[in-house]
Amino acid sequence: MVLRDRFKGKISAGAMEFLNSLRVDREMIMEDIWLNQAHVIMLERQGIVPREDAAKILSALDDLKAEAMAGGFQLKEELEDVHMNVESYVTEKAGQAGGKMHTARSRNDQVVTDVRMKLRGEILETVGLLITLDRTLLKLAEKSKSTVMPGYTHLQHAQPITLGFWASSYAEMFFRDIERMLGSYSRVNSSPLGACALSGTSFPIDRKFTARLLGFDSLQENALDAVSSRDFILESLSSLAILTSNLSRLSEELVLWSTEEFSLIEMPDEFSAGSSIMPQKKNPDLAELIRGSAGRTYGNLVQALTAVKGITSGYNRDLQEDRALLWDSFRVVNSSVEIMNGILAGVKWNDKRMFALVEDGFSCATELANSLVMKEGMPFRKAHSVTGKLVKSLIKEGKNFKDISDVRKLLKKEGIELSEKDLRNLLDPSKAVSASRSIGGTSPAEVGRVAKSLKKELLVKEKSLKGKRKGIEDAGKETEKLVREIV
Amino acid sequence: MVLRDRFKGKISAGAMEFLNSLRVDREMIMEDIWLNQAHVIMLERQGIVPREDAAKILSALDDLKAEAMAGGFQLKEELEDVHMNVESYVTEKAGQAGGKMHTARSRNDQVVTDVRMKLRGEILETVGLLITLDRTLLKLAEKSKSTVMPGYTHLQHAQPITLGFWASSYAEMFFRDIERMLGSYSRVNSSPLGACALSGTSFPIDRKFTARLLGFDSLQENALDAVSSRDFILESLSSLAILTSNLSRLSEELVLWSTEEFSLIEMPDEFSAGSSIMPQKKNPDLAELIRGSAGRTYGNLVQALTAVKGITSGYNRDLQEDRALLWDSFRVVNSSVEIMNGILAGVKWNDKRMFALVEDGFSCATELANSLVMKEGMPFRKAHSVTGKLVKSLIKEGKNFKDISDVRKLLKKEGIELSEKDLRNLLDPSKAVSASRSIGGTSPAEVGRVAKSLKKELLVKEKSLKGKRKGIEDAGKETEKLVREIV
Amino acid sequence: MVLRDRFKGKISAGAMEFLNSLRVDREMIMEDIWLNQAHVIMLERQGIVPREDAAKILSALDDLKAEAMAGGFQLKEELEDVHMNVESYVTEKAGQAGGKMHTARSRNDQVVTDVRMKLRGEILETVGLLITLDRTLLKLAEKSKSTVMPGYTHLQHAQPITLGFWASSYAEMFFRDIERMLGSYSRVNSSPLGACALSGTSFPIDRKFTARLLGFDSLQENALDAVSSRDFILESLSSLAILTSNLSRLSEELVLWSTEEFSLIEMPDEFSAGSSIMPQKKNPDLAELIRGSAGRTYGNLVQALTAVKGITSGYNRDLQEDRALLWDSFRVVNSSVEIMNGILAGVKWNDKRMFALVEDGFSCATELANSLVMKEGMPFRKAHSVTGKLVKSLIKEGKNFKDISDVRKLLKKEGIELSEKDLRNLLDPSKAVSASRSIGGTSPAEVGRVAKSLKKELLVKEKSLKGKRKGIEDAGKETEKLVREIV
Amino acid sequence: MVLRDRFKGKISAGAMEFLNSLRVDREMIMEDIWLNQAHVIMLERQGIVPREDAAKILSALDDLKAEAMAGGFQLKEELEDVHMNVESYVTEKAGQAGGKMHTARSRNDQVVTDVRMKLRGEILETVGLLITLDRTLLKLAEKSKSTVMPGYTHLQHAQPITLGFWASSYAEMFFRDIERMLGSYSRVNSSPLGACALSGTSFPIDRKFTARLLGFDSLQENALDAVSSRDFILESLSSLAILTSNLSRLSEELVLWSTEEFSLIEMPDEFSAGSSIMPQKKNPDLAELIRGSAGRTYGNLVQALTAVKGITSGYNRDLQEDRALLWDSFRVVNSSVEIMNGILAGVKWNDKRMFALVEDGFSCATELANSLVMKEGMPFRKAHSVTGKLVKSLIKEGKNFKDISDVRKLLKKEGIELSEKDLRNLLDPSKAVSASRSIGGTSPAEVGRVAKSLKKELLVKEKSLKGKRKGIEDAGKETEKLVREIV
Repeated sequence: MVLRDRFKGKISAGAMEFLNSLRVDREMIMEDIWLNQAHVIMLERQGIVPREDAAKILSALDDLKAEAMAGGFQLKEELEDVHMNVESYVTEKAGQAGGKMHTARSRNDQVVTDVRMKLRGEILETVGLLITLDRTLLKLAEKSKSTVMPGYTHLQHAQPITLGFWASSYAEMFFRDIERMLGSYSRVNSSPLGACALSGTSFPIDRKFTARLLGFDSLQENALDAVSSRDFILESLSSLAILTSNLSRLSEELVLWSTEEFSLIEMPDEFSAGSSIMPQKKNPDLAELIRGSAGRTYGNLVQALTAVKGITSGYNRDLQEDRALLWDSFRVVNSSVEIMNGILAGVKWNDKRMFALVEDGFSCATELANSLVMKEGMPFRKAHSVTGKLVKSLIKEGKNFKDISDVRKLLKKEGIELSEKDLRNLLDPSKAVSASRSIGGTSPAEVGRVAKSLKKELLVKEKSLKGKRKGIEDAGKETEKLVREIV
Repeated sequence: MVLRDRFKGKISAGAMEFLNSLRVDREMIMEDIWLNQAHVIMLERQGIVPREDAAKILSALDDLKAEAMAGGFQLKEELEDVHMNVESYVTEKAGQAGGKMHTARSRNDQVVTDVRMKLRGEILETVGLLITLDRTLLKLAEKSKSTVMPGYTHLQHAQPITLGFWASSYAEMFFRDIERMLGSYSRVNSSPLGACALSGTSFPIDRKFTARLLGFDSLQENALDAVSSRDFILESLSSLAILTSNLSRLSEELVLWSTEEFSLIEMPDEFSAGSSIMPQKKNPDLAELIRGSAGRTYGNLVQALTAVKGITSGYNRDLQEDRALLWDSFRVVNSSVEIMNGILAGVKWNDKRMFALVEDGFSCATELANSLVMKEGMPFRKAHSVTGKLVKSLIKEGKNFKDISDVRKLLKKEGIELSEKDLRNLLDPSKAVSASRSIGGTSPAEVGRVAKSLKKELLVKEKSLKGKRKGIEDAGKETEKLVREIV
Repeated sequence: MVLRDRFKGKISAGAMEFLNSLRVDREMIMEDIWLNQAHVIMLERQGIVPREDAAKILSALDDLKAEAMAGGFQLKEELEDVHMNVESYVTEKAGQAGGKMHTARSRNDQVVTDVRMKLRGEILETVGLLITLDRTLLKLAEKSKSTVMPGYTHLQHAQPITLGFWASSYAEMFFRDIERMLGSYSRVNSSPLGACALSGTSFPIDRKFTARLLGFDSLQENALDAVSSRDFILESLSSLAILTSNLSRLSEELVLWSTEEFSLIEMPDEFSAGSSIMPQKKNPDLAELIRGSAGRTYGNLVQALTAVKGITSGYNRDLQEDRALLWDSFRVVNSSVEIMNGILAGVKWNDKRMFALVEDGFSCATELANSLVMKEGMPFRKAHSVTGKLVKSLIKEGKNFKDISDVRKLLKKEGIELSEKDLRNLLDPSKAVSASRSIGGTSPAEVGRVAKSLKKELLVKEKSLKGKRKGIEDAGKETEKLVREIV
Repeated sequence: MVLRDRFKGKISAGAMEFLNSLRVDREMIMEDIWLNQAHVIMLERQGIVPREDAAKILSALDDLKAEAMAGGFQLKEELEDVHMNVESYVTEKAGQAGGKMHTARSRNDQVVTDVRMKLRGEILETVGLLITLDRTLLKLAEKSKSTVMPGYTHLQHAQPITLGFWASSYAEMFFRDIERMLGSYSRVNSSPLGACALSGTSFPIDRKFTARLLGFDSLQENALDAVSSRDFILESLSSLAILTSNLSRLSEELVLWSTEEFSLIEMPDEFSAGSSIMPQKKNPDLAELIRGSAGRTYGNLVQALTAVKGITSGYNRDLQEDRALLWDSFRVVNSSVEIMNGILAGVKWNDKRMFALVEDGFSCATELANSLVMKEGMPFRKAHSVTGKLVKSLIKEGKNFKDISDVRKLLKKEGIELSEKDLRNLLDPSKAVSASRSIGGTSPAEVGRVAKSLKKELLVKEKSLKGKRKGIEDAGKETEKLVREIV
């Protein structure tokens, strides 16, 4: 990005290193090669670059692509960015013709085109991983739709739920993450190429043609907007931050449930770690790292938001780090989703402990209050109050809802007569769970229905994902075909 | 939210104030009344509450609504939240029947339903304001599509553009903000009512019916997800943060352009402020406040992201502040958009200064280099280098591109012969601007075409906005009609 | 802040509300009155304002102060900020003399002086509350220095510790928060008054005198820095954010420990809440709110950091919100510290459950490994490995360290002979705890020593706090005395 | 960190990579070697490890140190962290004796000790760079204490100031950054070694001795606090974020001042960049990168704050990334400070333009109003109003303060008679500047005095810096000496 013919001074070494963006853009080399191919094919077609020059450039790009794919291409630090590395390689191979490759474009539109090409791939990758995670959760939901466990609010036992119900709540959350990522896709997969430095160009370029060759769905029209705007990056970083907020909640629950005290699950060995000093330990390090990764995506989002705050339109160098943040957030998120999937697939669920926790407590209090309303016609607030007093008395006597006769006695004092059989039914956690038949409730029937419906919706998303992938691949093939026609 | 029959202690005063959420939820009273109406109509329809009790409750709600609309309803601090205030009012008026209003629901689903109802309104409000702002920008774009001004990158003169081109770049940005807000709408306008505390209920409720009466487009099915998830809030806060990042960039430019040194614009008096000690000043305080409001929405987003990080599923009290953040961000954003619209409508654009800045500099250097490529067949890199040297020499001699004969002489030295007429054409900013005819380029023709096309797309968004508003109004009318049938 | 003689237009209503800073500065009225008194006394002393005018102004300020303290002074919205309200009141009462009060100063230095005066008070308030909290923790530390409980890493049982040891770890954390707050004090309590708009003044003012009257310890010398810089605000917001990060960790532990599953503590009733639908619940709402308050202080810090990013020197309106953030963060933090103190003072610690959790597990594994090193001369890594195998075998057989004979048998297989008595000693949690006698270790002796030493250090901090408070009070008295001399 | 004797499963590859902390801790190898040396010397002295074993270990560490310094030591990815790499190297060389190195400590205290050792060095490095930057600013302050330029508020011309005054305002800001960094030093340079996993140890270790050998000033006493707390990291990250907020403001001003429109400065060539498409440009890329680096340090701070929010005490894996953030923030800040120093030393200040901007405007309006107060006895508010009207009239007529006779005529209309000579004096920017003689005002005399005083304070800070550096070096020498006695 530094062409310094008019400068007499020399840039200092420290400054050079700071300016150097190879660190952040070396991952975009394949995108940059493809972009160069499409651009040169267009320049030739429009008569801006003669066919023989185009052939030389494309041939050089062929060599570079082969080297890069074989891992043999060494980027030179002194050329500062991946774009200058590619251009320098081409100029060396193609001679004077190489100097024509950068006609009718600028580093400004080139960089942001590369970023969008790589970003769309990352989004699709994450969506794919989320679909897998969601299927794992729905499989669990169906398998354990009748496994009774305590439902918590404020981490206190609230009402009995099923493990399957819990699993499908996360499936719904991650499904919205999928929606969000796909929803942002159309704002990402739009071509800025041809915006040039900031104002378009007087060369008779064909922006729609390059957009098609590069697999874009639309054009970023206004050129100044195309090179200045980074809201598409902020949007992706936000989506990833929100996704990790969901992941961190799931991680927290797994960390908690794998404690000695909860003992609701056993973490799979391959996703745990030992201790250097305490041989008896099995630490949920990976779940903790996933929980911590929320901090990473939050921090990346804040960095990007801060960088764009208050800068003027047109490219400013403050924007350089944006892409580094993107790739970092995606790397962390993709690892996290993959590992979370592995953890969920490998966890041992302690059904007995789950049931015991419900049975030995007061989780069925709401069900009891509801029944007083439905069967005794008591106003809800009154039923609530009576049940509250009952629980208080039981705790005082060291009893719980398993002590049916005590419950019966205490209710009688409040003027409520219930047979032991009725009470037993009311306070049976499995029955309470089955009774929650409202739409989306915890009853096995509803859990099964919701899971089935969500699986269908996942199929739709997967189809959309595949369509997008195919569009990109087809564009790649078309470019390749046109290269072959010229070279 | 504190019903304390089983507790012997008294909550401390300091703690009480901290727990008190009236501050954050008093703005949702109209939503809460509507929700209660719909819920009671449904309870009656499903046979859960007798018609006469329903009539008493609905009648009390009628009174409350009238008082609240007239501004006469005083919320009691000691009742802690708006929901208890409403319930307490109803119980007072409707007697024992009032105690039945809270049947088959919980504070958990009630709060989040209110939030979603209010939030959808806020989103539509912001979208409406953005459509207005975009139209103001497009009007400016069309009016000044031929007004030449310097285009900046790195705040340095880069190439000549037009004011209309600049305006339409912001129109495109804010259009994406509109898309983002509307894109999130379906994840907001979905009913959690009936999820109850966390697991649904055994009462035979009809969730679809209440959803329809409240104007929701769909159901949040899984009950645990419905009461635990706040990603819809994070998504709105993100969208607002991104929007203010765009607004702050526009503000920064206006602040800059209104300096003595730039003098590209004069701020409208009604959006400026004076100084207590310096009588000559006219300060762009409102643009600065808008620029600063990015901090506010960023901070609110970070607060919400932090609060949900690592908490377990089921309601936790950490979530209480989420809605305060929402209303605060919307208030700031809506004011900012409205004021920005006023500023843009009132600014005086200094066309002469704009043109002079272009003419007296080297903004047309790219156009000259392009011409060397197109007409002389010079490789781009070479043309770039020759032009760079030319500029260097001119600066040294204290000249610029207006000094045509000097330019000609210097080019000659490099072996390039151009007639004075050709040069004059090449270095005429208006002609340079007209030449940038690539799609989305700065030429008046393209600026006009893009503006027209964007205006059409705005009509589509406006139609969608109106449709959503009507849906909500119709639902309100249906509820009202059913209330009348019972009362 | 808006004096608009040279403007012809009218500021719009929406803009006016946005500009209005009463919301953020009404809390500084007492500081503003004091500032005005000191400033006028100085102006009179320096011969800038005649004594009779000074007397009129000071007398008007007397009236205002009385009204404000009695709660009778109504700020007028249309005067936009607290400073104009005060000035307007004085001008009304003192006639033309009132117009002289604003001589030789500006809104810019006035605002930041008020902020610093209020801020120093907030810092001292928080430090005082933290000293109280620390004493509560140290009292607990001493009382329960022998109460054995599981020590956790990764939330897994690691080694036995004592409750007192745990309490004193938090005492040390909050002690550093005290240090940080006091460490920032000298950068806060420094007078910017006399910096005027940005460049000082040609009036012969005496900055040192006003600084003394207002209780400042030093001067912010360079005037431009004095009105532009907000790093003292960022520093306070950072300290509060760090403090809440510590508080949120403590809250998380208390929330966890009060679950049915952990049952290590019972939350005091007065700091818990009930549920609207689940009568048996006792929710740790206040601990959750404290945990969530980390989000609030983080968000406020981010907002302030964002606002100052990239703005130029000299006052800019972006800075208006800074003080609102300050008072909000202090309010949240002070409530949180006070409530946390109440919670800790009221919690019931379940000693039996704590001991049982240690005894029934493998917490003493490290102690066993250490002993193999010390007594058997085994390299640590080897001892670690042997102990690990032992634990694995015991778990397989459903045994733990209470099953001494099984342990003995299994160790024998590895070639290690230990008498049952020795083993019993080694695996006795109380003895393990007592053995950790390294400095700062969990042994009761060390916990006691550390607590004692920390209490001494708290006395030193308290003395410093009292000295600072007295300095401010004395300055107030001196001002009052000089006012009386003139009026 | 993974010792897995009791696990039957295999950790998955993806998980392994995620767990791998080499990336974040490879920079701490020299600290880790030193720590190991000190620990082993102590173990030998306390009779915990026999002298011959200690000699073997220390000898292996000698070899490793030599290899590492020569750059020949390759860290093995599969060993996950730097600590296991060091231990594995030692065990290989020292045989069974190597297994004793990890006696009486844990990875938990080891990591945090390494971090503190490296961090203290980073703090001192930054302080040193800030002292240099401050001296550059003060040199500029003294050299240009009489160079008149416009002083801005709201980016509008406010009052005339001097360039030296501006420079010394930044010198004061960065001086506070120095204070903050040094103020946090005592909370950083405190030894956690010996805290072991979380509870100290029963081995008879000597924590004070290792602390001395490692150059620590004190002990982190409570062991649980020592391994759990990360507030010292948050404090450093906060200080760096605040520092970059100051740097970004300075950068913004330099970017602005180097625009064609301002033309107050010319950026040094070696800290500028060209453009790939616009040959005439000289872009302030480095100042922009520094401005953008605020985002980086803010983001890192948010990540760290988020990671610690709500985690329980004792080590949790979430904390792994903290050190990566530290080194990243320091790298960015240190580069930024160094480059800013280079920029300031190389900038050409355009004195003529600065003066012209003041002379051609109304910057002296305040001075005029002040004089009406001082000489005519007019109340300030009235003088303000009169001057405001005057400016308004002048602007209307296209005049400014250089048009003395117009000014005189207009004042006369308001009843104010001033001789042309008096007016000329009043409106002479240089005289206005010299008149601002209040403490810290913009008069050359005050700028000179403040600069001199700040230079003295810098000497004190430098002495403190050197003292700290020497303390660390001496500790290193003592360790080395004791190693030689054993090996």
